[in-house]
Amino acid sequence: MNRDIALLQETELFSGLRIEQIAKVLDIAKKVDFAAEEIVMREGDVGDEMYVILNGTVEVVKSLILSSIYEDEEAEKKNKVFTRLDEKNHAVFGEISLLEGQKRTATIKTVTDCSLYRISRNDFLALAGKDPELGFGIMFNLAKILAARLRKADDDTIKLTTALSIIVKES
Amino acid sequence: MNRDIALLQETELFSGLRIEQIAKVLDIAKKVDFAAEEIVMREGDVGDEMYVILNGTVEVVKSLILSSIYEDEEAEKKNKVFTRLDEKNHAVFGEISLLEGQKRTATIKTVTDCSLYRISRNDFLALAGKDPELGFGIMFNLAKILAARLRKADDDTIKLTTALSIIVKES
Repeated sequence: MNRDIALLQETELFSGLRIEQIAKVLDIAKKVDFAAEEIVMREGDVGDEMYVILNGTVEVVKSLILSSIYEDEEAEKKNKVFTRLDEKNHAVFGEISLLEGQKRTATIKTVTDCSLYRISRNDFLALAGKDPELGFGIMFNLAKILAARLRKADDDTIKLTTALSIIVKES
Repeated sequence: MNRDIALLQETELFSGLRIEQIAKVLDIAKKVDFAAEEIVMREGDVGDEMYVILNGTVEVVKSLILSSIYEDEEAEKKNKVFTRLDEKNHAVFGEISLLEGQKRTATIKTVTDCSLYRISRNDFLALAGKDPELGFGIMFNLAKILAARLRKADDDTIKLTTALSIIVKES
């Protein structure tokens, strides 16, 4: 339990929370185990649960290009991004589903056997209703995470439109 | 005052809040007036205040392309996006600054004379500390707004990388 509290405190989503607040989060978390090579969530599916990695490594697979332009699966595979998460490195995923039933923005597949904590939106909202200070702390962290991702996405868009405009200019 | 409460209740950021909660937000808001053609905030500057439009229209100007590739100002102007906001349509702007001192992601310029409410991050955080239920409600709305923008930005990235990959394939 103490190790799990320390683990959650090190994540961006739960950073700054006190030990007794983290303990309340763990009260609504369910431990679930996955074997290696299992799909935890699939890009495009609607989900209402987030996860924290306790042990193991997962792979995040995200499309970069509309799949309609591919001739075969091999070509499609080349244009996906793969990143890996484990308990020490971005242990939280699926956290946007705390907000509302959203389509998953990536597929998550286990690389090794994994132990995860699963937290459902309904349980989180009930907890935030009972303890709004805790709810505010988590929501503030989540908004900051999303703002940082949005900034990065905006920068990427600017780079891509710049590249496109240079190509169009030169052609 | 009643009109201002109704106006805030219709924005995404303050939606779902009760009248007495909105009244607390108005208590920390300062009314500020701008003449037409004034700059309210400049893209890239660090800001810690958000705004609600009470009267008037502002223009949002956002770079789409890195400015380093332009030869002159006229060319640069062509590659900016301009959208307009007023009290009926996306009355809130600068709301990411509630989270931390962030660089402004767009320039805001008044089109007409404008009356705005200005809310500082420090005043908001003090209010959320005293009334965490209210803080949670606003932060939950803000996280939802950011998640929606992030989804749109990710879609844009996929479209742009698809366009680039088609061009590269054909050249």
